[in-house]
Parts: sequence; C-alpha cells; structure tokens
Amino acid sequence: MKLRRSGRLVDMTHYLLERPHHLIPLTFFAERYESAKSSISEDLTIIKQTFEQQGIGTVRTLPGRSRRRAIHSENDRRGSRRKLSPICVNSCRGPDRLLPGGYLYMTDILGDPRIMNKIGRLYASIFADRPVDVVMTIATNGIPLAYAIANFLHVPVVIVRHDNKVTEGPMVSINYVSGSSRRIQTMVLSKRSLAEGSNVLIVDDFMKAGGTVNGMVSLLQEFNGNVSGIGVLVESEEAKERLVDEYISLVKLSAVDIKEKRIAVKEGNYKAFV
Amino acid sequence: MKLRRSGRLVDMTHYLLERPHHLIPLTFFAERYESAKSSISEDLTIIKQTFEQQGIGTVRTLPGRSRRRAIHSENDRRGSRRKLSPICVNSCRGPDRLLPGGYLYMTDILGDPRIMNKIGRLYASIFADRPVDVVMTIATNGIPLAYAIANFLHVPVVIVRHDNKVTEGPMVSINYVSGSSRRIQTMVLSKRSLAEGSNVLIVDDFMKAGGTVNGMVSLLQEFNGNVSGIGVLVESEEAKERLVDEYISLVKLSAVDIKEKRIAVKEGNYKAFV
Repeated sequence: MKLRRSGRLVDMTHYLLERPHHLIPLTFFAERYESAKSSISEDLTIIKQTFEQQGIGTVRTLPGRSRRRAIHSENDRRGSRRKLSPICVNSCRGPDRLLPGGYLYMTDILGDPRIMNKIGRLYASIFADRPVDVVMTIATNGIPLAYAIANFLHVPVVIVRHDNKVTEGPMVSINYVSGSSRRIQTMVLSKRSLAEGSNVLIVDDFMKAGGTVNGMVSLLQEFNGNVSGIGVLVESEEAKERLVDEYISLVKLSAVDIKEKRIAVKEGNYKAFV
Repeated sequence: MKLRRSGRLVDMTHYLLERPHHLIPLTFFAERYESAKSSISEDLTIIKQTFEQQGIGTVRTLPGRSRRRAIHSENDRRGSRRKLSPICVNSCRGPDRLLPGGYLYMTDILGDPRIMNKIGRLYASIFADRPVDVVMTIATNGIPLAYAIANFLHVPVVIVRHDNKVTEGPMVSINYVSGSSRRIQTMVLSKRSLAEGSNVLIVDDFMKAGGTVNGMVSLLQEFNGNVSGIGVLVESEEAKERLVDEYISLVKLSAVDIKEKRIAVKEGNYKAFV
C-alpha cells in the first residue's frame, strides 16, 4: 500500500521494533510502501536519529541492505545499565527479602513483565552476536527471564523439569549433584523439544555453586548441543567453588547474614559484556 | 527535547506501542517534545490512521486526553482471528501430537514466544475492559501464556505451584479435586505474592473438566480476590461435567481416539468475545 513519509515512519517504526536483530532488505520497504529506495533510506536516517536521541536503540545499515541490528545500541545499553541497576540492585535489597535458608524472595521481580522485558532486552543484546537456536531454562523461576530473552532473540524456549510430566512424551533424564546442598537430583527434558546439535543459551534466576546450571550443560550433552552462553539474574557470592566458569549475572548477592537479617547486594558482572 | 514531526512520529509510535491500554494526557507529549497541543493532535491522527490501515491497532482519544486504548482495534482483532486460527488449529492437529493418556503435545507451541505473544495480545484485548490487577496461572505450562497476556495488560503475574518451594516464604495451600482424574491434589501460593482483594485473571494451557482452574478460583477466595476472567489455550470437549462456567478458549479438542491415534481440533469459543 502506498504510504506517505509520515505513515511510513509510523509503520516502519512498528515493523522494526517488532523484529530486533533482524536483517531486512531495503527493497522490502520500498515494495511495501511503493516508494523509491532513496526515500526509504531517508526514512531510516530519521528513525535511526530518533532511536539514538531517545535511547530507544539504533538501526544499522549494511551495504545494499538495511538492517536493524539491535534495539540496544551502545548508547541504549548504557541507558539500560543506568535504568536496570537501580531497579534490580535496590529492589533486591531490603531485609524483608531474606528468607529462611539464606534464600532471596524474588517472586515479585520475576512476576513483573516490565522488569523482565528490560532485562531480556539487555541479555538479548549481549548474546545477539553468538549463535543461539534456543533458550533453555529449568522450571519454574527461570521461565520468565528465558521467555523475555527468547522474545528479543526470536528463538524458542525449552523448559527442563524436575519431574517427569506425563504430557510431554519421551524424556531424557540425567542425575546431577546440587552444588550447594550436595544432594543428587534429577532433571528431565522432553526428547522432542530440543533438536540434536542445537546452540543453546542457558538461563536461570539464581546461581549459587552452579550445580543446576551445570546439570543443564550435562543434559545438553545428551542432545549433542552446544552452550552458546549462560545468563543468570542473581548470583550468590558465597559459593567457594563455582562449577560454572563463564556466565553473565545482573546482580550479585553477598554477605548474607541470616541472624541479623542483612544482605548486601551489588551489581553482577554483566557490565563487562555491554 | 524539541522534536520535529518526523522525529515525534517515530518516538510516539514507540512510546504508544510500549504502553498498550494506557491513558496518556495530551500535555505529556506536548511537554515531551516542546510542541503545541494542536501539533500533537495532528501527529496522533496520522498514527491512528496508519495503525488502522496497517492492522497494528488503533488510538482512541478522550475529550481533553489522548488515549491509546488497545493494540487490538476491531480490525486488528479480526486480523488476529484469521492469523491465529490456522496457526493454532492446524498446529494442534496431526496424529503425532497425541500422547499416551489422551494428552496433547503442545510444548513446541508454548515454547514459541511469537505465537504466545499473538495469543497474549488477543486475550489482553478481550479482557482489557475488565478490571485486572494480576494474571494468575499454575506452574509450569500456563506460565508463557500468562506472561504474554500480562505483558499487554501491564500487570504482574503470580504463579501457583504444586510443590511447596522453599524460596517463596509463607504459603497458602488448598486441596482440590482434579476434575478428570478425581484425585485430591494440593496447590500453593506464596502469601506475599498476591495482595488481598485483587482482581485476578486466571490462565492455564489446558482444561479438561476444569478442576485445576476451579482450584485456582478456590485458592483466590483465601486471598479475598475476585475472578476477572478465565482464559485457557486448549479445552477438551470430552469433559461431561464442566466445573467452570465462563471461560475463553482458543482451541477445542474433540474426538480423541487413542487407538487410531486420531484427534479432531476446532476453534474454541473466543470468537464470541472479539
């Protein structure tokens, strides 16, 4: 449908926002709006400028093609840093978050789609340059973060379970040792849900010694998959011996004092990657 | 920051798309762009026209205020119907989806953020006129749909569990009778996660007799909450006695023939609400 510049700007903004990290040929827009490529190029310049000015992101153009590289330009990543850091560090603070056993109450943070989307966007931009076919997480708390990231990377989610649910068909199961409690546990994944040889981004909400994440890495080996990256929301600094080497965390929990009901929360290591 | 019309159109489109179903005063944009209200009104007319032409949604204006009512205008709802119906009905079909016990394999559909977003948008537009403070679901399979809907309604998600997880603090638990298997089961919800008297939209992936949904309704009573609505992805037609009266379903499963590995899938009742 033929559209004037004003209409094109509105529609293209919507189109690009719906498809972060996608490569779109310039001719696609030229045909969509029955407009000259030169006009589309000018539209993209306006959108790029506005995106960058307003901290929405950026649009990158490759020779002969227009490509919206990422919602998160360098600028915007820094913007997210500023915005995320108070949200997460401050909201994880507070003595009423401390639960028996040194656990942290995070249900409200995980239950807020807005916060999850912001973190999902940030993590997606960090992992955008790596090959990711699927985001893997373990039920239940990792699921919101996994969907938020997968949404921005445009890949599906697979959910590992602790129980063998009847409605998922044949399962592959492994035993693993929980790093902190040293108990042997089981995790299972539906055989159908992950293709052999997939590139997998592993995500979880909380990591202590890393036993659960490590279990997902082992499970992945049964599917001949590759680990594209590991992202957690909160890591606990307590862990002396970490079972996982390379991971990204948003928040680091340290100095948990159960008696005094005090916790110290600081930023995770994600800044090194943005 | 002062912006020209072209820049305003890009930024306002982004702003509105991020906040469906929100009421935004016209003065907000006038101040944001240091522009006259009359110019902002013209911008909104352009955005509204483009949204409607391109099936993105609509923008409604109230006297003295500009309000983007819903991503789904009537037009767009019809568009979603056309798009969703083949996606869901056809993808639920296929004899290889049938699992032992008459269950349906839906993990791949639930794992696709794109499909979940489309359904979430549709359901959000159906429930947009009702008071919804929070979307409630039960772990694990209902979670993706719950987040997708909550994201468009801009409300949080609370997750009911079958097990009493240590990291959520004090819990309220109830026993309920599973409608189809007639077994007594337990479901629990973290006391902190739901405020007293909330208006709650209950969501699940699959409903047979409705025992699980009914359990969530009972659990909600312990929090003095109100049921704003009930939405499921797939309902099974088999159920003779339905424990739940009013609900919305996208897909209806009927004539499950385990021996012949045949299933019949048709559209649910959601069309009556769009």
